[in-house]
Amino acid sequence: MDEFELIERAFRSRAPFVHALTRLPNGDDASIHAVPEGQEMVMSTDISMAGKHWPEDFPLSDAACRAVNAAVSDLAAMGATPAWMWLGVMATSSDDVDRMGQGVAMALESLSMELAGGDTVRSSVNALSVTVAGLLPQGSGMRRNAARAGQDVWLCGDAGLAAHGLRQWQQGKCEGKHVPCFRDVRPLLNEGTRLRELGVTCCIDVSDGLLADASHVADASGVAFHLCMEKVDSFQALIREMDEQEAMRLVLGGGEDYSLLFTASVKQRESLQTFACRIGECREGSGVHVTLDGRNVHIAHMGYNHFA
Amino acid sequence: MDEFELIERAFRSRAPFVHALTRLPNGDDASIHAVPEGQEMVMSTDISMAGKHWPEDFPLSDAACRAVNAAVSDLAAMGATPAWMWLGVMATSSDDVDRMGQGVAMALESLSMELAGGDTVRSSVNALSVTVAGLLPQGSGMRRNAARAGQDVWLCGDAGLAAHGLRQWQQGKCEGKHVPCFRDVRPLLNEGTRLRELGVTCCIDVSDGLLADASHVADASGVAFHLCMEKVDSFQALIREMDEQEAMRLVLGGGEDYSLLFTASVKQRESLQTFACRIGECREGSGVHVTLDGRNVHIAHMGYNHFA
Repeated sequence: MDEFELIERAFRSRAPFVHALTRLPNGDDASIHAVPEGQEMVMSTDISMAGKHWPEDFPLSDAACRAVNAAVSDLAAMGATPAWMWLGVMATSSDDVDRMGQGVAMALESLSMELAGGDTVRSSVNALSVTVAGLLPQGSGMRRNAARAGQDVWLCGDAGLAAHGLRQWQQGKCEGKHVPCFRDVRPLLNEGTRLRELGVTCCIDVSDGLLADASHVADASGVAFHLCMEKVDSFQALIREMDEQEAMRLVLGGGEDYSLLFTASVKQRESLQTFACRIGECREGSGVHVTLDGRNVHIAHMGYNHFA
Repeated sequence: MDEFELIERAFRSRAPFVHALTRLPNGDDASIHAVPEGQEMVMSTDISMAGKHWPEDFPLSDAACRAVNAAVSDLAAMGATPAWMWLGVMATSSDDVDRMGQGVAMALESLSMELAGGDTVRSSVNALSVTVAGLLPQGSGMRRNAARAGQDVWLCGDAGLAAHGLRQWQQGKCEGKHVPCFRDVRPLLNEGTRLRELGVTCCIDVSDGLLADASHVADASGVAFHLCMEKVDSFQALIREMDEQEAMRLVLGGGEDYSLLFTASVKQRESLQTFACRIGECREGSGVHVTLDGRNVHIAHMGYNHFA
């Protein structure tokens, strides 16, 4: 089987969905897409690599499904509707191409996204480079630099559970309670859209760890974030299973959460509290400050860093 | 230096250009781009990997510059104007991130393209996943499936010289005459635009080898291609330096040419012959047939295949 047949079998035949706005689908030098008047194109790219973003012994199709969903989480954070994906596949064997194809197809189907193009190459390591595109009404994208002093800080989704699930897997507890929180990434697309429609303007996808991503927003916006650990639901869940310090490390620095951290004015509390958790506030100043039941928490740099 | 500073130094600070249609540039969860009414978005993705797409001893900044230009060649084949790029960087060290950043910035500057986003990860192998976007007047993109019996087949650019240059490099002839043909990929953007404006509808970027890419067009269009080797300028150049068989292998199967293969009606000969070379014709039938001075050439499968 040559390269072209392999790609056909592993990817294209399994992901036949073509978006209504596609003018030339996968299979040519490039794909062509219309963007309706009043809409904008939202784009993001993510690499996922074996041994780095998933454990080497993790099922490869689950890893690939996870990689696509993780990339789409960046679209959720803008409040965009996903539409297209382009895939760079690095695989150690044609069997691994096939496994990744399975996972990618699973994710695309659940997301109603089109595989609009890709490239495949044999490599010494399995990895996926996932570029995703979505659509958004003009000028409505949520961003990092729009937090204002006086606003509340909210978290939609969990923090720390995925990191705990990953640790359970690494310790051989493949049936561990939180393993699915790591394995089954569900980008918060409906929630992102709802936030945007409610007029939220500042949002970030929590993937580097709650602390690192809160810092990105605080720095970009020129405000200070004051977070209360005890208000984070998943912190309450974790301290039932481990000591406070450990739970704090997971919640603040674990990463891979794919939850949404956003800010909103006090007036919006009522409409937000049904699907998000108010965990702090923005004030004049800089940096991220964390308390637990009123006591200051000493925070080391807890975000994951690929080149540290 | 942490990951964020590294990326800032290696990439963003060196590629400051922001496209007029960008609504949110690099640095947030995703980038946002407007597409003007009457235009369409053209997208393509390519992986380039050390030891696969460039020799391990090749200067990494040249390799990265080459990778970007090679990806953009797919936009040239559609007749599109390049605008944005998203980059997945896999690097063995932070020095290598920096070297790739140099080459990427060089390419982006010469192409007037924006680095709209990216992701960087430490890896056992240096590789780049390059996703490029361009713009095109609605409905005007050239494609593979539009060749018709009776049309001429044209080649704009060379075939075989890059493969010869690569071979010279591998043989230690770093100053070899054709090494620059491999090293300095120049996507034929002006030529692609001109073809599209002249009404050409069928075009492909020659990257897998002239024979493989001609087959893609012939198969997609349901026609036969009849090519005359002696009409290919670069074949004439190569047989001055090597035997006929060897020159034929390089021209037909070498790959990495980034030239444009297209078809056009006989009426268009005059306007095309100033910048392209008429190398054959489309007829009823299937497959690619090659002659040299009227004799049939026996062609084995000569395209490069990553998983063969």
